Amino acid sequence: MIKIGIYGYGNLGKGVELAVCRNEDMELVGVFTRRDPASVKTVTGAPVYAADRAEDFAEEIDVMILCGGSASDLPEMTPALARLFNVVDSFDTHARIPEHFAKVDQAALRTDHTALISAGWDPGLFSLARLYMNAALPEGKDYTFWGRGVSQGHSDAIRRIPGVKDARQYTVPVPEAVARVRAGENPELTTREKHTRECYVVAEEGADKALIEKQIKEMPNYFADYDTSVTFITQEEMNRSHRGLPHGGQVIRCGSTGAKNEHRHVLEFSLKLDSNPEFTGSVLAACARAVTRMYSREIYGCKTLFDVAPADLSILSPEQIRASLL
Amino acid sequence: MIKIGIYGYGNLGKGVELAVCRNEDMELVGVFTRRDPASVKTVTGAPVYAADRAEDFAEEIDVMILCGGSASDLPEMTPALARLFNVVDSFDTHARIPEHFAKVDQAALRTDHTALISAGWDPGLFSLARLYMNAALPEGKDYTFWGRGVSQGHSDAIRRIPGVKDARQYTVPVPEAVARVRAGENPELTTREKHTRECYVVAEEGADKALIEKQIKEMPNYFADYDTSVTFITQEEMNRSHRGLPHGGQVIRCGSTGAKNEHRHVLEFSLKLDSNPEFTGSVLAACARAVTRMYSREIYGCKTLFDVAPADLSILSPEQIRASLL
Repeated sequence: MIKIGIYGYGNLGKGVELAVCRNEDMELVGVFTRRDPASVKTVTGAPVYAADRAEDFAEEIDVMILCGGSASDLPEMTPALARLFNVVDSFDTHARIPEHFAKVDQAALRTDHTALISAGWDPGLFSLARLYMNAALPEGKDYTFWGRGVSQGHSDAIRRIPGVKDARQYTVPVPEAVARVRAGENPELTTREKHTRECYVVAEEGADKALIEKQIKEMPNYFADYDTSVTFITQEEMNRSHRGLPHGGQVIRCGSTGAKNEHRHVLEFSLKLDSNPEFTGSVLAACARAVTRMYSREIYGCKTLFDVAPADLSILSPEQIRASLL
Repeated sequence: MIKIGIYGYGNLGKGVELAVCRNEDMELVGVFTRRDPASVKTVTGAPVYAADRAEDFAEEIDVMILCGGSASDLPEMTPALARLFNVVDSFDTHARIPEHFAKVDQAALRTDHTALISAGWDPGLFSLARLYMNAALPEGKDYTFWGRGVSQGHSDAIRRIPGVKDARQYTVPVPEAVARVRAGENPELTTREKHTRECYVVAEEGADKALIEKQIKEMPNYFADYDTSVTFITQEEMNRSHRGLPHGGQVIRCGSTGAKNEHRHVLEFSLKLDSNPEFTGSVLAACARAVTRMYSREIYGCKTLFDVAPADLSILSPEQIRASLL
C-alpha cells in the first residue's frame, strides 16, 4: 500500500482525499492543516493533524500531496517539504515553473527524495497533450482553450472589490475561435478573441453596481483584455445555480505532412469536468503512485509529468497494461 | 544527428521518409527493400539498398524503423532485426502483442539493443490516451472509435474476391453511439452498434455484382458482424474520389468522482488525419528519437510507448519543454 499524506485541506485537498480512497493500492495516513485540527472535519473521516507536526510522519508517509495555492503557498511549501518527503504538487503559475523547478530540485536532491511538480490537468494532462502532439506533428500550431468553467482566481479577484459580497467567474472559449482552429485555419488569435469572461456578482445592499461593474471590466491582467459580462444576482440564486466548480477545455494541434504539406491533421484532447478539484485530485493521486515507483528506482530530484513513463501512473502491471490498454 | 534506416518501403515507409526529413535532428541513411533496389525510387531521393544488405549498415544506423505488415512481416522481422539494430515497429495485431513483445524482448536483450514496438496511433497515441485516462479517472469506462477512414486490411480482403478489380473500405463510427458515449451514458455497445463499413468496389466486366456484394457482407470477422454497404463504382470514380488514405477516430472515457459518484467527467482524445501512413510515420520518427535516448542510458530490451518518458520524444531539451509546453 502507498501511504499518502495530504498537506492543505481546501477544495483540492478534499478532491485528493476522495481520489485516494478510490485507488485500491493507496491508504490515507492523514490530512495536515494550518488551521486548528479540531476545527476541521474530513469528508471520509481521515485523521487531521497540525501542519507543523508533519515532520513526525516522515517515516510513515510515502508521498505527501501538497494542496496549497500557487501564488504564495507552494513556492515555499514544496521545497520545504521535499526535504522531508516525496511530494506531488499542482503548481500552476506557468511563467514561474522553471524557477520553482530549480528550487524543488535542489531541495529534493539534498535528501534523496522524489518531487513531482505542476501535476493536474493544466499544467498536467494538457501539457502532455501539447508535448505528444508537437512530437507527433512537428509542423503545426497548437492552441489551448479553457472552459466553460469556474476560475477561482478570477472569482477571488472580484470578491476583493468593495461592495461585492460574493462572486463567481466563468471562463468561456469563443466558439468561433475553437471552430476556426478545428477547421485547420491556424489563425492568429488575440487574448480577447480566444476567451470571454462571465461574472456573476452578489452586491452588498446599497452598493454602487455600475462602479463595481466598471472596476471588474477594467481590472488589469484579470479582465481588461477580455470581453467581460457582469450579471448581478441574489445570494439565493448564487447558492442555487453556481455552487459547483465545473471546468474543462481542449488542446488542439493542427499541422501538416507530405512533400508539399498537402495533408492536414487535426489532433484534439478535451476535458469536460463536473468538479475541477476532484478531477485534479484524482490526477495527483495517480502521480503519487508514479513518485513511489521512481523513488524505489532511486530516481531523485524534481520531475514533471514529462519525465514520468506512463506505465508508472497505472495501478496495473506492465503485462496487464500491454494486454488490455495497448 | 540521429541516423535512421527504413526497412520496407510501402505507404508507411514513405510516410517515415517524409517525417525523418522534417525532424532537424535526424538523417536518413537509406531505405531497405526486398524488391529489386533498382526498381524503387524514393520520394526524397534517399538511397535504396537490398534488404539482405542491412546487416552491413549495423554501425551506421542508430535506429531502423520497420515498415512491414503486422500479419506476416513484423512477427519475424522485428526479432530478427532487433539483434542487429535498435528498432521501432508499428505491430498492430492487438491480441498478439504480448507474444510479439516477448520475442522482441529476448532478441534485443541478447545483443543489448532497444526495441520499441506497437508505435503509431492505435496502438500508440490512442493507447497512451487510454492509459492516462484510466489512471486519472479510475472509476469509468472507455471507448475507442475508428474512422471515418480507410482500412487497408478490409480493402485488401475485398480485392481477393473473384470478379473484384479494385476496392476501398471505409470504417465509420455510428454517430448515435459516439453521442451516447460523449453524453456519459456509458452504454454497452455491440460491434454492430459501434461502427459501420462502407465499401466502394470496381467490378470486372461481366462479374456477378450481386454475388460479390453477398460475399463481402457475409465475410466472417471482416464484415459479417457489421452493417455493411456496398457501392459499385467505375475505376475512374475510384481513382478520382478514393485516392487518399484518410483516417482518424477517438478515445473517450467517461467516469465519475465524488463521495456519491455525483460528479461526471468526460475525457476525449481525437484525431482527424488526411494521411494515415504519413501521420503514423511521423509518430514512428519521434519514437526513434526516444529509442536513441533510452539506448544511450543503457535501457535495453523491448519497450512500448507506456515505458517512454514523454520528454524523450521531443526534439526540445527538458528546460525548453518545461518553459514552453508545461
